[in-house]
Amino acid sequence: MKKLLVLLLLATFAQAQTKDEQQIRSLYDAALTEGKAYDWLNHLSNQIGGRLSGSVQAEQAVKYTKQELEKLGLDRVWLQPVMVPKWVRGTPEYAFIETKPGLTNNVPVCALGGSVATPLGGIKAGVVEVKGIEELEQLGRKNIEGKIVFFNRPMEATQINTFKAYGGCVDQRYSGAMEAAKFGAAAVIVRSMNLRLDDLPHTGSMSYGDLPVSERIPAAAISTNGAEFLSTTLKLQPDIKFYLKQNCKQLEDVQSYNVIGEVRGTEEPEKIMVVGGHLDSWDLGDGSHDDGAGCVQSMEVLRLFKETGYKPKKTLRVVLFMNEENGLRGGTEYAAQAAKKKEKHVFALESDAGGFSPRGFNFDAPQGFMKTVESWKPLLEPYLLHQFVSGGGGADIGPLRGEGVILAGLMPDSQRYFDHHHAENDTFEHVNKRELELGAAAMASLIYLYDNYGDESTAMDNGK
Amino acid sequence: MKKLLVLLLLATFAQAQTKDEQQIRSLYDAALTEGKAYDWLNHLSNQIGGRLSGSVQAEQAVKYTKQELEKLGLDRVWLQPVMVPKWVRGTPEYAFIETKPGLTNNVPVCALGGSVATPLGGIKAGVVEVKGIEELEQLGRKNIEGKIVFFNRPMEATQINTFKAYGGCVDQRYSGAMEAAKFGAAAVIVRSMNLRLDDLPHTGSMSYGDLPVSERIPAAAISTNGAEFLSTTLKLQPDIKFYLKQNCKQLEDVQSYNVIGEVRGTEEPEKIMVVGGHLDSWDLGDGSHDDGAGCVQSMEVLRLFKETGYKPKKTLRVVLFMNEENGLRGGTEYAAQAAKKKEKHVFALESDAGGFSPRGFNFDAPQGFMKTVESWKPLLEPYLLHQFVSGGGGADIGPLRGEGVILAGLMPDSQRYFDHHHAENDTFEHVNKRELELGAAAMASLIYLYDNYGDESTAMDNGK
Repeated sequence: MKKLLVLLLLATFAQAQTKDEQQIRSLYDAALTEGKAYDWLNHLSNQIGGRLSGSVQAEQAVKYTKQELEKLGLDRVWLQPVMVPKWVRGTPEYAFIETKPGLTNNVPVCALGGSVATPLGGIKAGVVEVKGIEELEQLGRKNIEGKIVFFNRPMEATQINTFKAYGGCVDQRYSGAMEAAKFGAAAVIVRSMNLRLDDLPHTGSMSYGDLPVSERIPAAAISTNGAEFLSTTLKLQPDIKFYLKQNCKQLEDVQSYNVIGEVRGTEEPEKIMVVGGHLDSWDLGDGSHDDGAGCVQSMEVLRLFKETGYKPKKTLRVVLFMNEENGLRGGTEYAAQAAKKKEKHVFALESDAGGFSPRGFNFDAPQGFMKTVESWKPLLEPYLLHQFVSGGGGADIGPLRGEGVILAGLMPDSQRYFDHHHAENDTFEHVNKRELELGAAAMASLIYLYDNYGDESTAMDNGK
Repeated sequence: MKKLLVLLLLATFAQAQTKDEQQIRSLYDAALTEGKAYDWLNHLSNQIGGRLSGSVQAEQAVKYTKQELEKLGLDRVWLQPVMVPKWVRGTPEYAFIETKPGLTNNVPVCALGGSVATPLGGIKAGVVEVKGIEELEQLGRKNIEGKIVFFNRPMEATQINTFKAYGGCVDQRYSGAMEAAKFGAAAVIVRSMNLRLDDLPHTGSMSYGDLPVSERIPAAAISTNGAEFLSTTLKLQPDIKFYLKQNCKQLEDVQSYNVIGEVRGTEEPEKIMVVGGHLDSWDLGDGSHDDGAGCVQSMEVLRLFKETGYKPKKTLRVVLFMNEENGLRGGTEYAAQAAKKKEKHVFALESDAGGFSPRGFNFDAPQGFMKTVESWKPLLEPYLLHQFVSGGGGADIGPLRGEGVILAGLMPDSQRYFDHHHAENDTFEHVNKRELELGAAAMASLIYLYDNYGDESTAMDNGK
């Protein structure tokens, strides 16, 4: 009798395994043979283009993705209003190095997002090169006042995960201007966050903190080749002048939206799972990797469930967040509304690391959940998902962090991401169709597993 | 006393781990910060270009790589003579679909490597579409004679490893002409081995087997978009004509060389480890992924050892094989010479799957060795190497197979490989510097581990 019971249990287990294997296989088959993600991305990138918050393109993207979600036959599709900052780049930036009066070399620059303009005639000043913010204190006001501070700490090539290399120098871009202004700098030039040597400046967000408007100084990124050239020139001739002209501007906040679609759960509709990316992008490229890819992959998750006939037990929402790049207003507003309505979010998965070959997921989750994830490995490794990392999550879903909600992020191969990040070559032709589709299928598979087995780990954690 | 011994053993083990970790770290650091692979590839691809066996470019590549190896201060660098086939494409191929006399649509085609030419005026004939060689028998001579057979079985998109998808339809390209000729076909057109829909025909090797010269028929690849167009047109109008003109030619064999460099082992010089790729390529692109990448990565392995001060205990040879693509003469000759000289090869690692992000290795090795590899995982996983697969190896090192020699292949991410394979877009700008460098460092790390611990597994196997 006992033997029979064991056999029955084993048979049930084997059946469950087989059912899961089959469901995951069918998600991958559907993504790879009749996926919609690539077509959607083609439209977002090539028909709409860069989608900076507050721009006409961002508005078009809201309309387009809402309309496409409506075609999927979800239970509900809606727009969640959110006020977003509107910053405009203005006419193309212009910069040169002047070694002697009249003897100049142009270098590629772009204004950092949120920067103030230079005076109409531009700024021309001497340059002081630093490797980081901490050097400003040592140099002191006497060496900085009236000068352009050139932040030139490169991304560390020896980091295998390029996001770590990014994390190791992005403070120069984000806080460089604010800190240099305190020492009387005239402007800052920041080496682009790019591991390649090339001619493309990479923009990105920056902050003046509490600095009064009158004390804000212009901030621009310079291409990595430009940074190398400037640094070499400074070694040979420390008294060169640098000229910068940009006429970007911060306008009033404008109305925008998160785009949300929902399939109501069949068994536990009160428990909400979120899958999302951010709809806004920077303005230089068309935002294909950052984060058009994450948006269309998230939409594809819901389409794949429909396509394969899988009805989630818990409620599943796709959320296309607005304004991740320069404000995080969409993510913040979504979490605020969720709290206000006392919605019970249990799981949130974000894709915001590019549309490259997926290699796994990171999780902001309790240990018990990580053990459950461990048990899913045999189902996911055949799809070449090997990294299941504790720590991380994502920017837009970050504000949801709190009691019981598990945050996760898709981890694609990171080697090429910063070649394109925030630069004019973040464009559609650099996204590979299969890599994009594999990411969507990986995300759908993880949500399927959470929907069916995620609660077990919560039970485990409570039982600890 | 026993406790002390255990502690001592543990300490020794920890020290070994640390030493190995440090050595591997230093290999990666050197590859990522002062790597030479990318510069070498730039020269091979952009200064020399496509290196079809017997071409001037193949000859230039032999000279260039020999000269570069000589700069590395190895113990010995030499050329190993090998006669290779010389096939030339001639003037660009030309093809169209004729729906009515005078109403034609051009389609992109290229001759398959080794194909005969069409008659001077080309061939115009009706088309019979098949999904594979096995359909020829069913159709029989009456439906095939005088027609152009169109092999149109696509690569399976649902395969996660694209090499499996390739393996699933490359028989059409390799044997299609030989088999169709037996039923009196006038020529064959083969759908390009490409998972994307685009306009680039992909060449590749084919064979006529024992077919007399007089019975050989022309064979060409058609781009995937061209194949879709032809197939659709045939459905609407089965009696269309297809025109093909190509004037490729097989010439007499010519003299060429494998390029070999060697560092003599400090402890067991009689044991030889090989690392290699193939120096020849197809002629349409510049052969950057196939297999310029593998060549420069293999050269880089020896440079990294020099750079980091590591002296292999066993003899290490880099072998740049000639004529992998259309004859495998280099690999065959290398193994024949090794046998003749009674050299003891113990390990051979090939890189011939593109210069993409490395994900692991495949092995043609006994089970005991796979257990040893398992013990290396903690050293390699921090570098995102997760796949350690039994089975496979590589084409050029295949002829070395035999008693006691372990064959291995680098496994890069395979998603984009067939977008470029044997086509005019297998070019330098599609190789990412970091991905290439990570592959070289992964190869060096594996060879380091084999050099130090590989014999343990052999001992294990003998002890079984």
